[in-house]
Amino acid sequence: MAGREFFTALTVAEALAGFRPARRSAVESVARENLLHRVPAADVLAPHDLPGFARATVDGFAVRAADTYGASDGLPAYLELAGTVRMGHAPDVAVPAHGAVAIPTGAVLPDGADAVVMVEYTAETMPGTIEVTRPVAPGGGLVRADDDVAAGEVLVRTGRPLRAPDLGLLASAGVGSVDVHARPRVAILSTGDEVVPADTPELTAGQVRDATASALAALIRDAGGEPVYAGIVPDDQGALTEALSKALAAADLVVVSAGSSVGARDETASAVADLGDIWCHGLAIKPGKPTILAECGGIPLIGLPGNPLSALVVFRLVGVPLVWRIAGCGTPPPEPRTRARLARNVASQAGRLDVIQVALRDGMAEPLHGPSALLSVLARADGCVLVPEPATGLDAGSEVEVVLYA
Amino acid sequence: MAGREFFTALTVAEALAGFRPARRSAVESVARENLLHRVPAADVLAPHDLPGFARATVDGFAVRAADTYGASDGLPAYLELAGTVRMGHAPDVAVPAHGAVAIPTGAVLPDGADAVVMVEYTAETMPGTIEVTRPVAPGGGLVRADDDVAAGEVLVRTGRPLRAPDLGLLASAGVGSVDVHARPRVAILSTGDEVVPADTPELTAGQVRDATASALAALIRDAGGEPVYAGIVPDDQGALTEALSKALAAADLVVVSAGSSVGARDETASAVADLGDIWCHGLAIKPGKPTILAECGGIPLIGLPGNPLSALVVFRLVGVPLVWRIAGCGTPPPEPRTRARLARNVASQAGRLDVIQVALRDGMAEPLHGPSALLSVLARADGCVLVPEPATGLDAGSEVEVVLYA
Repeated sequence: MAGREFFTALTVAEALAGFRPARRSAVESVARENLLHRVPAADVLAPHDLPGFARATVDGFAVRAADTYGASDGLPAYLELAGTVRMGHAPDVAVPAHGAVAIPTGAVLPDGADAVVMVEYTAETMPGTIEVTRPVAPGGGLVRADDDVAAGEVLVRTGRPLRAPDLGLLASAGVGSVDVHARPRVAILSTGDEVVPADTPELTAGQVRDATASALAALIRDAGGEPVYAGIVPDDQGALTEALSKALAAADLVVVSAGSSVGARDETASAVADLGDIWCHGLAIKPGKPTILAECGGIPLIGLPGNPLSALVVFRLVGVPLVWRIAGCGTPPPEPRTRARLARNVASQAGRLDVIQVALRDGMAEPLHGPSALLSVLARADGCVLVPEPATGLDAGSEVEVVLYA
Repeated sequence: MAGREFFTALTVAEALAGFRPARRSAVESVARENLLHRVPAADVLAPHDLPGFARATVDGFAVRAADTYGASDGLPAYLELAGTVRMGHAPDVAVPAHGAVAIPTGAVLPDGADAVVMVEYTAETMPGTIEVTRPVAPGGGLVRADDDVAAGEVLVRTGRPLRAPDLGLLASAGVGSVDVHARPRVAILSTGDEVVPADTPELTAGQVRDATASALAALIRDAGGEPVYAGIVPDDQGALTEALSKALAAADLVVVSAGSSVGARDETASAVADLGDIWCHGLAIKPGKPTILAECGGIPLIGLPGNPLSALVVFRLVGVPLVWRIAGCGTPPPEPRTRARLARNVASQAGRLDVIQVALRDGMAEPLHGPSALLSVLARADGCVLVPEPATGLDAGSEVEVVLYA
């Protein structure tokens, strides 16, 4: 393995644009009822026309449009009632010239007809004779057999997570399962002599439970991934290298908390460099500077800062798009955003992206400060404001875009 | 049962504000790893202080702040190195007057210290003596034992779906499970003589597979609910009443497609009226006018329009907030939105909400027209534009807010 290191500090935009690992998760066939938000590995084509037959879209009478031309309240067209189409059945009658067949919304257009006139513009003044008081154009009041999707056309597209209407279309077409990318397996490796599992009932002095792993697992699930806990390793380079090798062997992406002290961070970087190429060490972002992006034997790896808040901020910006990418989705689904006015001045350093946690109240965004060691700051936030690299701060009262936490 | 009918047509805003069923889903205890987006039934309090001990937030030296006052590059303070704190362990040394103890980020502050000076502002010029070149204030370089959350304070709040940082806080506090509202069970009842199950391999003339049920199930899952298929009933009032009674007995919310023809819609309304109170029949919205909101023996019921597109538009606006409400969440999580310019004029009728499906391209919102019988219109849309009740249309080029489909 290489141990090369390419960039020492990049902007987040440079990292997102440049770090594009080729890794994709495997393809698996998944039943329709479990396809929500999954990404098709290839376009799915319609096996037959949808809806499959010309259907009325109004309650009324199937007619030949030409028979209604010129019809008005003063001078109605008179058509002979030839029969009725029953919902869900083939018509047992055709529409003759100067004839009409009663039809409910959704039923099959009978032969001979090329339009459906709405019942509101008709009257059966004499039994068996339909008076039409408004003309209808050919194609009016109906959809054609292939108007929804024609046979062989794309039913659902590759590269985009499936949404509710897509599942409806698949159901319409009778497609029972689709080949989709497997949920990317994302290994979470925690490091630190002080870190103990979250289910540790009693702590001794200096110990903390592993908060980051639980929170990261949630972000991974939101991004369509499958979190895999790879355990907690002490601040020891040998143990770390071993745990990383094991995690890399079983995952599509490895996320490792890089340790909060300088020594622990150096150990993480060394262990990663032993196993592959460090593509970038350091991001121009606060919080989150000591971030590592690497590729080890084809598996992407993110070394996150040791503080839980910093780790989550970076993973949301850099890790979430990567999880989607591994699942074959180039553009992650949109995030909720809103506009608000800053309640207070915010300081920022030119050349780095500042991520400010904010609480929203009455259209005002109140910056929440506090050390990035405190996860409660993130839990209290309604969203965050990104202060771009060129800015040296934002003034109270300025309009900002808030990325909302859903 | 009553059979009363209260309102014949309301705006969507009136319906959302006024139709507020008291039904809540049951409370169940759920393990932490499955709590994402679940709604706590009560506030969860911190069982102990978090982080639980005063911790360094920088690499450096634990000191008595007063010993550093006035220190500068020209006139450093000289402190005696009294020992080192190991990560994850109780300190075995206290900080004496004019003393310093080496400490890594995250380790326990030793007794006697009230600040941590960053290693960058120190030098060990002689073995055992630390030169400090910048003063630190009491509390600098550390977080206190209860800075994240104090014992007995709210750790996670009731009424709001749990997010990633909340799960981190629960892990920090060692909370293994939380009482949350059960996923609301939402029964989906499809009606129509023409509707057959989605897994029907071959259709006969006039039949359509049940697309709406699959798409509704996806929207229900996105809203944190549990869809329960209650089957397909023909357009027959007796069968419908029986199926509705059965669905109501086993669900927190019943959703029924009200049929697409006028006759089928009337039957649905009659069946619902037999079983409870129709609170509203008809919404001032397009598509989606023939919507029913009802309450039957304490269980809310939504009668949706028969067209799949209309049904999904109405369920997204009216049903999704109701599912969240039943789970104890008053304000649903925010939806993604963006601003765009309309590519074409859009017509609208004053007095009703018009929901326009749009495709986004280069900041332009292109309205997608087509009969509401076509689900493909919704599948192709990136989002929708709501034209409010007073407007009679929107001009091409005007800036609009697009609700994005995630």
